[in-house]
Amino acid sequence: MEKVFRYNEIASGIATQIRSGILKAGDRLPSVRMLCKEHSIGMNTAKRVFLELEAQSLIEVKPQSGFFVNKLDYLRLPLPEASNPSLKANLNEPSELITKVYSNIGRTDLTLFSIGVPSGNLLPLAKLKKEVLYATRALTEGGTEYEPLQGNVKLRRMIAVRSLAWGGNLSEDDIITTNGGMNALSFCLMALGKPGDTVAVESPCYPGIFQLVISLGFKVLELPTHPVTGIEVDALKKVLPKINLCLLVPNFNTPMGSCMPDEHKKEVVKLLAERNIPLIEDDIYGDIYFGTQRPKCCKAFDTEGNVLLCSAFSKTLAPGYRVGWMAPGKYKDKLLRLKLVHSLSSPSIIQEAVGNFLKTGRYDVHLHQLRRTLQHNYQNYVQAIADYFPEGTKTSRPQGGLALWVEFDKGVDTIKLYDLAIKKQISVAPGRMFTLQDQFENCIRLCIGLPWSDELKFKLKQLGNLAKMIS
Amino acid sequence: MEKVFRYNEIASGIATQIRSGILKAGDRLPSVRMLCKEHSIGMNTAKRVFLELEAQSLIEVKPQSGFFVNKLDYLRLPLPEASNPSLKANLNEPSELITKVYSNIGRTDLTLFSIGVPSGNLLPLAKLKKEVLYATRALTEGGTEYEPLQGNVKLRRMIAVRSLAWGGNLSEDDIITTNGGMNALSFCLMALGKPGDTVAVESPCYPGIFQLVISLGFKVLELPTHPVTGIEVDALKKVLPKINLCLLVPNFNTPMGSCMPDEHKKEVVKLLAERNIPLIEDDIYGDIYFGTQRPKCCKAFDTEGNVLLCSAFSKTLAPGYRVGWMAPGKYKDKLLRLKLVHSLSSPSIIQEAVGNFLKTGRYDVHLHQLRRTLQHNYQNYVQAIADYFPEGTKTSRPQGGLALWVEFDKGVDTIKLYDLAIKKQISVAPGRMFTLQDQFENCIRLCIGLPWSDELKFKLKQLGNLAKMIS
Repeated sequence: MEKVFRYNEIASGIATQIRSGILKAGDRLPSVRMLCKEHSIGMNTAKRVFLELEAQSLIEVKPQSGFFVNKLDYLRLPLPEASNPSLKANLNEPSELITKVYSNIGRTDLTLFSIGVPSGNLLPLAKLKKEVLYATRALTEGGTEYEPLQGNVKLRRMIAVRSLAWGGNLSEDDIITTNGGMNALSFCLMALGKPGDTVAVESPCYPGIFQLVISLGFKVLELPTHPVTGIEVDALKKVLPKINLCLLVPNFNTPMGSCMPDEHKKEVVKLLAERNIPLIEDDIYGDIYFGTQRPKCCKAFDTEGNVLLCSAFSKTLAPGYRVGWMAPGKYKDKLLRLKLVHSLSSPSIIQEAVGNFLKTGRYDVHLHQLRRTLQHNYQNYVQAIADYFPEGTKTSRPQGGLALWVEFDKGVDTIKLYDLAIKKQISVAPGRMFTLQDQFENCIRLCIGLPWSDELKFKLKQLGNLAKMIS
Repeated sequence: MEKVFRYNEIASGIATQIRSGILKAGDRLPSVRMLCKEHSIGMNTAKRVFLELEAQSLIEVKPQSGFFVNKLDYLRLPLPEASNPSLKANLNEPSELITKVYSNIGRTDLTLFSIGVPSGNLLPLAKLKKEVLYATRALTEGGTEYEPLQGNVKLRRMIAVRSLAWGGNLSEDDIITTNGGMNALSFCLMALGKPGDTVAVESPCYPGIFQLVISLGFKVLELPTHPVTGIEVDALKKVLPKINLCLLVPNFNTPMGSCMPDEHKKEVVKLLAERNIPLIEDDIYGDIYFGTQRPKCCKAFDTEGNVLLCSAFSKTLAPGYRVGWMAPGKYKDKLLRLKLVHSLSSPSIIQEAVGNFLKTGRYDVHLHQLRRTLQHNYQNYVQAIADYFPEGTKTSRPQGGLALWVEFDKGVDTIKLYDLAIKKQISVAPGRMFTLQDQFENCIRLCIGLPWSDELKFKLKQLGNLAKMIS
């Protein structure tokens, strides 16, 4: 577990403001003395705040003069606009497009900017293999027995221990393991909704989420979403009478990468609890923050047990392992029963392997490395976009996660761009995939989970040229 | 793959008649010459038929006199009656009882006659461990990548190869893997039904099945079921206008152990196809037949693609691995989409391990052994019941599977028996668990998947004494 120090917390807040463009290049930061006063901290703590920000190349020190926000070249691109979807439940599913794009999974001849998982190069493959082997030895009957219905105890305990990092205080008994993250979301929706119900989601939204919602016979209501701060809380307030459930990815959602500020999280949790509308919170990207501090979960502000926190190790450790979990609050009994009835239990060996990987601390070591790599990738991607993409291109400024959201000028048809790019062995995810409405036709999502290389840079250049060609 | 020889087929038919009591102890069998004529076979084949039956101790040869059915002591107990449930959809779920009995899973202080899985002692644990290790080496990226949506190719291919044994002719492309057998049933029900629909099932029925059906908001209609031949086809005919789906376990279902004759299977498939009522066929016990020949699946008679065959390796290889599959016929696209949306994919490592275990032929070697063990267990159990249970006790005569269905005199309350037995560290499954109606209160299910021993025999004796006490 990484401890959260006070200096870290403050540095993280300032870093967020710099990365999201609230503090701009050349802006002067408060002095050490002022910072001490503002936050009621000692000199040493204040100094560490600035050391931390300097280490991240976010600020520079001018002797005799003070601390200044660095010119971050990759920040010169403007932000995309906040989305403004219709607030009616909608069902115009881009099924064919989704199928077309996802059919590229596994194709080694393509550069897969389109698939939102970390490349195998970024994963601790050798160590995981060993854990699997140990697991077959450690488990009674070699893992051939049913494990407890709630899931492997070691894994649940380690997930509980880690909950402190996002402001939670879970015990192993609060947690139920699942076969991957989508399985957790699916169980939560099935347990709490019924056909005809309306589910509020972000817009743009991960297609897997609205496909799941629709397949259960529920309706999808897309909420206006800001690229930095996530859903517009006022819009949520307006639609409260119309919705039965809310499913959000508050931290570094795909494709936009927004991260809701704590106050928004707090308010949303309160609003929904008052109306008895369950909040299903998907935190699958929460562990891959670029800054110094892990963002909190909505669950951290949940006093009523109304938040069902879901997550998985698919985006950080091993997509193919299908190890997910949920902390369903006051709905635990319902969810446990649903797991019993629909899948009985999860494969013991794989859960034990991941549990042990967490317990030995290897997961934290790995995450530390993965976060640095993704942050560097992000900066390299944005730099390449600034260099090669058409004038006027806008990009999101995710502070974590695996996705970069790129908005071209209105005229650029990204479904056409997809078709052109695929001929150059490049696969991207057109914006229309991420909504049920007619919007985002000029946007794409790029996965930043590929290892950076000159070839990757060249592919982005090619992509930029194609975009210029059709704009 | 075990080949099916003509002699095997004929021996199996005769064995079935002996085991189910149609041919009785002392009955004379046809001569070699007559058998040749009856079946249009050669002398050598006919001789092999009798050798096979003799090897199974089902017949004895009296020199100069002929072949006679042996006295099978374990067959002297009468059969339970066919069930006669109300043909109305029913919802009177014995939830508390089910929870109470299943909460004993994993308790090592109890003799678990109540849980329907083979004991770890009967499983090839060491070999499976090795397969898991090989799988982490064989898979690209060590199995951390998503596998193809339909599931591991090697596993699907081997399942397809095996389909010949039950009269099928599947290709790997017909098959979708799942996280265990219940997951396959759950997907099929979700894909084809909607809340309010009625599903016809056997009676008694595996509680997991009606719990699943109810949890989806469907209704359950229990069909009259014969302990040897399964559901009464005439009863099914009667309720056809009332049902939307049919979910059967035609081969060695739990708890009754019945096996539908081929003609019944053929007729049921035809009846349902005519009305466009999908048949979900759970064949999870099909591989553990006691006779010489694997029973056919309904799917073997399916010309319309209207049968969704589901199975898993949980009852034969490793319950905790959660490796299941389905061959959904013409509903494949729907099921594939449902799998995509609800769980994306299954854990690659475990599927590869099982695929390889099948490919190397180790599965067939293991099955051969497991079948013999279970058959001996069955005979030992029935012998013990004949020796120690109250006068008038009836037992099923399963020709495969893991369950023995025991019917006491009307007065014996098996929920009371459960409570008494648990104090002696014995757990049994009361009959009321297997129905939504007020029936089977005087029945219990015993799992025969425990390794036979003097202790086990003693436990059955204790159980018999308790039953005598309360009868």
